[in-house]
Amino acid sequence: MEFAIKRPDDEIRQRLIDKINNLTKPKGSLGMLESLALQIGWIQQTLTPGLKCPYNVVFAADHGIADEGVSFSPKEVTRQMIGNFLSGGAGVNFLARQHGFKLNVVDAGVDFDFPKTDGLIDMKVRKGSRNFLYGSALTDEEMHLCLERGAKVVRDCHAEGCNVISFGEMGIANTSTSSIWMHCLAGIPLDECVGAGSGLDKDGVSHKYEILKRAMANYAGDGSVYSVITCFGGYEMDMAVGAMLQAAELGMVVLVDGFIMTNCMLAASKICPEVLCYAIFGHQGDEVGHRLVLESMGAEPILRLGLRLGEGTGAICAYPIVDSAVRMINEMNTFSKASVTKYF
Amino acid sequence: MEFAIKRPDDEIRQRLIDKINNLTKPKGSLGMLESLALQIGWIQQTLTPGLKCPYNVVFAADHGIADEGVSFSPKEVTRQMIGNFLSGGAGVNFLARQHGFKLNVVDAGVDFDFPKTDGLIDMKVRKGSRNFLYGSALTDEEMHLCLERGAKVVRDCHAEGCNVISFGEMGIANTSTSSIWMHCLAGIPLDECVGAGSGLDKDGVSHKYEILKRAMANYAGDGSVYSVITCFGGYEMDMAVGAMLQAAELGMVVLVDGFIMTNCMLAASKICPEVLCYAIFGHQGDEVGHRLVLESMGAEPILRLGLRLGEGTGAICAYPIVDSAVRMINEMNTFSKASVTKYF
Repeated sequence: MEFAIKRPDDEIRQRLIDKINNLTKPKGSLGMLESLALQIGWIQQTLTPGLKCPYNVVFAADHGIADEGVSFSPKEVTRQMIGNFLSGGAGVNFLARQHGFKLNVVDAGVDFDFPKTDGLIDMKVRKGSRNFLYGSALTDEEMHLCLERGAKVVRDCHAEGCNVISFGEMGIANTSTSSIWMHCLAGIPLDECVGAGSGLDKDGVSHKYEILKRAMANYAGDGSVYSVITCFGGYEMDMAVGAMLQAAELGMVVLVDGFIMTNCMLAASKICPEVLCYAIFGHQGDEVGHRLVLESMGAEPILRLGLRLGEGTGAICAYPIVDSAVRMINEMNTFSKASVTKYF
Repeated sequence: MEFAIKRPDDEIRQRLIDKINNLTKPKGSLGMLESLALQIGWIQQTLTPGLKCPYNVVFAADHGIADEGVSFSPKEVTRQMIGNFLSGGAGVNFLARQHGFKLNVVDAGVDFDFPKTDGLIDMKVRKGSRNFLYGSALTDEEMHLCLERGAKVVRDCHAEGCNVISFGEMGIANTSTSSIWMHCLAGIPLDECVGAGSGLDKDGVSHKYEILKRAMANYAGDGSVYSVITCFGGYEMDMAVGAMLQAAELGMVVLVDGFIMTNCMLAASKICPEVLCYAIFGHQGDEVGHRLVLESMGAEPILRLGLRLGEGTGAICAYPIVDSAVRMINEMNTFSKASVTKYF
């Protein structure tokens, strides 16, 4: 699947800056609200940007590498949490309700046969990826299928009028996949990429690192982004990559969640660098490599609240700040209209 | 005026922690949302806390020290901005609308005779404080009047059902007052307390520092909190101190805004240390001393967005995060109810 993502036209940027600088405040004094308003106006090519019908999509899948004891949490938690998402009791649910997000829960590859379930979007590629310690987690065909299916989910949201979208994930062991991705794609030493995930102690982190080091030693691919996301896989993560690329192609604002979704954005940016023009990074979490992978993309996250839950929680928590930025540029008075001496 | 602020009973804390740890997420994985939920449940002495009828109160006044050229902005901006607040076009307005805050604008001591104005609360003590380079900015009587009037504004909000309140300010030159307060009350070297305010360049900051150094040399008070807030004054800042103390006495959650309001909380804490139990620090701004004064109180702000506007904007921007914390503890499923394996 090919994605044709255009860098937004730069011509409008100076006009956006002028508008922001004429609002009744000292120049620059609304900090990140000003830079976000500039970015969103640039993405939407308008001096009066707007956010419509926000969606959060949670992609869920199981990972064969979980068999190596790399996660603190048992694998069945992935499928159990699907039920929790659908009944409205998970972390992402109260945040989605608070900020008016619709929630899509996508079975990308959970190792469980769900009964026909209302509200669960069935995009299952396979019941869990293969254990990448011994071979490729996905096939080439599966990887491409993920990109397509992730893109399809986004097109459906867009057709409903959505122009701002966040992505989250549920997949026990997917911090292991993320650590390998950032090692391969951002060139960060593996030991700086491996952290506690959902709660490993020091010995657990050491074991995880040893497993991932062995997996890298066994890796025979060429290090290209397609090779990396195929061999170390994660159906939910590959779908998120396709989803992000599709969202950017459609000119949507993409809210990036935590450690795992940041690595999906990293992979997306290696496929098509222009995707970063559309990306707003919601949150920098405590997982040890998160700061490093953000820095590798020059990303400045909005929040640092010590979250490490995933599901889209970090992105949705940041949404009101993004919304504030849009309201600022639309609702604040100019100096002349308010009869205030321009004080800069 | 005496304030009788009680430290909330600690007995409930373990029950709050147990409740938070049984929600369907890895332990601690909602980071600051968890610590905020604990604090608010503790303040309200309940496992099901709630936020009601939020208010933002903007105290406005002029400062005699502005005559020394310590601010980038001309003094008339204070009164002009009052009109902007009342017509809904300032920074604080769009944020208040976004997050459902009612807004009170209080004339604490603006150097202007406002016509009878709908929506402006007249608490004027004097038309601007005296220039503290040459003597005390306020009289003792004025200082006590400010504490009482600030408290009165809060009692009126509380009577309407408000249990969460933020305070902001408008007062050209009040970063100068704030710098002196933190120097005197937190013992931080004066040069580390002085910054750019609304936009001074390097020479401007140097001049401001020299003026404040001379003011300190002329200061003949005893360094007590009452002496400091009288001599270096600021009607709007002294009213905010009284307002914060009253809010804590009434068991309200107090949202602390930027550099100036953080210094008001510092002063309040020197009058009654228990006020800090009720304080949630919304934002750490770019003003150079802000980090230091926060650290002096052991405060951990929610946001760092590079704001430096005041008015309550930093506190209100942080409100949705505070609201998220309350929703988390009320709305998330427990492991047993959701049939999810407890994964920690």
